[in-house]
Amino acid sequence: MKRTMYAGDVRSENIGQTITLKGWVGRRRDLGGLIFIDLRDREGIMQLVINPENVSEDLMKDAESLRNEYVIEVTGEVVERASANNNIPTGQVELAVNELTILNTAKTTPFEIKDDVTVNDDTRLKYRYLDLRRPEMLKNFKLRHQITKSIRHYLDDLNFIDVETPVLTKSTPEGARDYLVPSRISEGHFYALPQSPQLTKQLLMNAGFDRYYQIVKCFRDEDLRGDRQPEFTQVDLETSFLSEQEIQDITEGLLAKVMKETLNVDVTLPFPRMAYNDAMNFYGNDKPDTRYEMKLQDLTELAKTVDFKVFAEAPVVKAIVAKGAADKYSRKDIDKLTDFAKDFGAKGLAWVKVDNDQLTGPIAKFLTDKTADFLEELSAENGDLILFVADELDVANTTLGALRGRLAKELDLIDNDKFNFLWIIDWPMFEYSEEEGRYMSAHHPFTLPTEDTAHYLESDLEKVRAVAYDIVLNGYELGGGSLRINKRELQERMFTALGFTADEAKDQFGFLLEALEYGFPPHGGLALGLDRFAMLLAKKDNIREVIAFPKNNKATDPMTEAPSLVSDKQLAELSLSVEEKNKD
Amino acid sequence: MKRTMYAGDVRSENIGQTITLKGWVGRRRDLGGLIFIDLRDREGIMQLVINPENVSEDLMKDAESLRNEYVIEVTGEVVERASANNNIPTGQVELAVNELTILNTAKTTPFEIKDDVTVNDDTRLKYRYLDLRRPEMLKNFKLRHQITKSIRHYLDDLNFIDVETPVLTKSTPEGARDYLVPSRISEGHFYALPQSPQLTKQLLMNAGFDRYYQIVKCFRDEDLRGDRQPEFTQVDLETSFLSEQEIQDITEGLLAKVMKETLNVDVTLPFPRMAYNDAMNFYGNDKPDTRYEMKLQDLTELAKTVDFKVFAEAPVVKAIVAKGAADKYSRKDIDKLTDFAKDFGAKGLAWVKVDNDQLTGPIAKFLTDKTADFLEELSAENGDLILFVADELDVANTTLGALRGRLAKELDLIDNDKFNFLWIIDWPMFEYSEEEGRYMSAHHPFTLPTEDTAHYLESDLEKVRAVAYDIVLNGYELGGGSLRINKRELQERMFTALGFTADEAKDQFGFLLEALEYGFPPHGGLALGLDRFAMLLAKKDNIREVIAFPKNNKATDPMTEAPSLVSDKQLAELSLSVEEKNKD
Repeated sequence: MKRTMYAGDVRSENIGQTITLKGWVGRRRDLGGLIFIDLRDREGIMQLVINPENVSEDLMKDAESLRNEYVIEVTGEVVERASANNNIPTGQVELAVNELTILNTAKTTPFEIKDDVTVNDDTRLKYRYLDLRRPEMLKNFKLRHQITKSIRHYLDDLNFIDVETPVLTKSTPEGARDYLVPSRISEGHFYALPQSPQLTKQLLMNAGFDRYYQIVKCFRDEDLRGDRQPEFTQVDLETSFLSEQEIQDITEGLLAKVMKETLNVDVTLPFPRMAYNDAMNFYGNDKPDTRYEMKLQDLTELAKTVDFKVFAEAPVVKAIVAKGAADKYSRKDIDKLTDFAKDFGAKGLAWVKVDNDQLTGPIAKFLTDKTADFLEELSAENGDLILFVADELDVANTTLGALRGRLAKELDLIDNDKFNFLWIIDWPMFEYSEEEGRYMSAHHPFTLPTEDTAHYLESDLEKVRAVAYDIVLNGYELGGGSLRINKRELQERMFTALGFTADEAKDQFGFLLEALEYGFPPHGGLALGLDRFAMLLAKKDNIREVIAFPKNNKATDPMTEAPSLVSDKQLAELSLSVEEKNKD
Repeated sequence: MKRTMYAGDVRSENIGQTITLKGWVGRRRDLGGLIFIDLRDREGIMQLVINPENVSEDLMKDAESLRNEYVIEVTGEVVERASANNNIPTGQVELAVNELTILNTAKTTPFEIKDDVTVNDDTRLKYRYLDLRRPEMLKNFKLRHQITKSIRHYLDDLNFIDVETPVLTKSTPEGARDYLVPSRISEGHFYALPQSPQLTKQLLMNAGFDRYYQIVKCFRDEDLRGDRQPEFTQVDLETSFLSEQEIQDITEGLLAKVMKETLNVDVTLPFPRMAYNDAMNFYGNDKPDTRYEMKLQDLTELAKTVDFKVFAEAPVVKAIVAKGAADKYSRKDIDKLTDFAKDFGAKGLAWVKVDNDQLTGPIAKFLTDKTADFLEELSAENGDLILFVADELDVANTTLGALRGRLAKELDLIDNDKFNFLWIIDWPMFEYSEEEGRYMSAHHPFTLPTEDTAHYLESDLEKVRAVAYDIVLNGYELGGGSLRINKRELQERMFTALGFTADEAKDQFGFLLEALEYGFPPHGGLALGLDRFAMLLAKKDNIREVIAFPKNNKATDPMTEAPSLVSDKQLAELSLSVEEKNKD
């Protein structure tokens, strides 16, 4: 029989209709001779009732054999439910079954198929097909699809062309670590999986496509953490002839449309803009969560006026004020915060509480004379906890930024219904990497420097600013973009600034340098992290909740056991052999 | 200045407006002191006119410096064109330029940027960004985007959920050769790039997603030819609880919508259906081009009645009749056809021509007595060329099928405006592979055998039929699908039939066997080759014309030179070393 509708869609208006449903046995209860079954399908749960007075003995026998997760087909009449269940949308009705077919049986599942069940991560992944049967998971994937649908409709309407770019690309050492794919035809040669289609989309601008988009898989072979996966999905845009403002406008329109069409949330446009330096100085973070205050405050000048060596000798003294938190943090709690601060490179954490217009705590005595000044400058009041870091500017910012985030969670300051979008603009072009011992691109080497700072490329890399912009949502970097270099000479200077010799630049990016000589238009774009965006809209804290078959934190799939050993024949065809590392 | 509109979109109704355009210099002509420029952008070409009487000397100097492919921004008034050009949509108007900015210069391009330019394939790929500037190429990618847009809208409306499946998957030896991706974290272990998301989408059905789709990259490391690339794109569908007829109906609706929305072609539904055996017997091909006749005819019985040893001893004698082709094929031409036939395994090619109700040609003398019978049985007439193959059935079918295709091209029998869709149904489950010395799946090992032939799994694999269906368009396999096995016991029998030991089955597909025990619903689906579909709608004969950055036939990208050598450090991190093969 053909299914009439989804079980989850049956409503009072269907009463009296004979319908056929197909789905899974969610729960069976035998009550007063009747058998009640929660039939589950993609759209929800619907109660079936099987009454021995109305059905054959054979059917009753089948019904009695039903276990959880059996797949069944039932036909019957929709009737009003005696005792309505207002917790589910189908709660006004039930199906009086008169036909039943068992389409498949099921063993006892390793965990129950329902929301809020506690299962360890690898078990969830090993039986992902069961994990995904949980209504909450299915909901995440419907949401994710609605997000991409809204994005596509928006970009299609703006004349963006969806173009697929290659997955088998060239490895370039700049950036994160590439996943490599050995070539069988060219011995000893490797493709790389793209970290992003950055250069490819730029070349599409050179080809005159004018507006490109793609929702595309990208790959980075890095160690994993909660919001990272070996493969992730990017909403990738590129445009020709537009200003950074115009690209940001397009992005804002896109995000506003998605928010409206998925969560029915109206966001205010334009989004606020914050300079990178302000983000670091006020939030200690280049992706600040502005759903709560507790900004970083600079007390360097005032701190020099008190007789406290730690303050006097530090390059900067900065603080955050946790409103009303004095009572909530014992000395022991604050010791934990101090350890946390040290993880971020701070030498220590100074603190005072405000009580009865006085400062208390170990360093209070040094500040007594200036209590009023401190309270005024910090806008601190009785009951507040004040945390100070006296250190290099970077360390003070990063540490207090991290403390700000931790305290906000602990003090429950975060409104989970808020969606705070924010542009971070006015980026530095370079970051000094201690690890590499050289300046690296803060974004990537194709980013356009601002006109008024480009001349520092040969003199002072700290001063070069980028025409770049990141979009932040609730403390997460949702995406980033920039205008790009479209002239060979400037691109060569950029490579030189990054320490490339002319030969290295040509070897790795010769095709780009050549392309820049053939009428490459001014262009720029942006990429959004789709997994992260879907995660935030689903109000989850791990992107695995919005990826159908993610890897675990060892980059392994516990279900298929990928990656796996391969045959000698496969290796021989690729001219490869595996070298066992020295075990230690 | 902001661009007002695309150059290609300017029309008579814009006359009198002052507009700004941005694009590429397509051609410059200096005529009677005026400078005429064809400005090209994504939407077309528009004539600019620069009149020294109306502009500054500086602007004139800039205008005189313009070369092909310079990128410019111009502002001016749209005016009526003195001599209209009815060959282009903007031909009624021109832009009287009063502002000009050169945004970028260009070297002389290695080939001219226009349609129908003859360039060798590797040069096109090396300068792909220039190749793609040609209006015809851009048109292909707009078409491709329109195809995917129509597909998505159709499937979205039918409640299919777009779900992304992993690119880093497990290698399975069954099927084509995998591209491998070495794992850095699990030494000596490899991911494989998916040949299709077959098992993943089946698991999504097990997860209750009910209707899944994805437009997804797939990968096969095989030697390349015209319509193959290392990576290709599949429109991938899977559904639960539907019959093969219902899945075919959904597919037909999808294809009809695409045809209407891209080429405004109305196709007749339902598509014709042809059994696999009929396709082989009448067309010598499992993807017959039905835009022309010239079917294969079986003459075995009649051929036994004449005194010609070749015919009498052959298992079958089959023929095709090329209507009116007698005059067009000399003996020399037919010798070429004979060589061609031998490539397909035929021992030879017999032929006669029909002239004045008589047969002529080397074997005519053997048939003279039965001329009328042959002519009647073959429906052959004066002026026809008849080609015979006397051989094993397979060889006769394949050879005559290939000859049929070749003759149709040479005789110009193919109507390029026709789009003949066709279902091939009633497939054998297995094909015997001479190379492997065993039976292999004609589709894949997860295909459901028909109920009435499944019992042959243990006795006669030739007799097992599959619930499978291929969709054919104009002689190309556009896609294929099937119902799938949803019970462990049957899947195990299938693996056994394919020669797997229980351990091998468990090792490679244990996760599937386990999944089949937890209420796996009945399910089935289909996959369409998007590149091939786009190629056919664009009326091209190579999928490279609809792939932005394809590989050449050595699986290399001449632009970036991928695949390339990688650093020792990269190899060491993957515990790999390259073994040089013995050169011969």
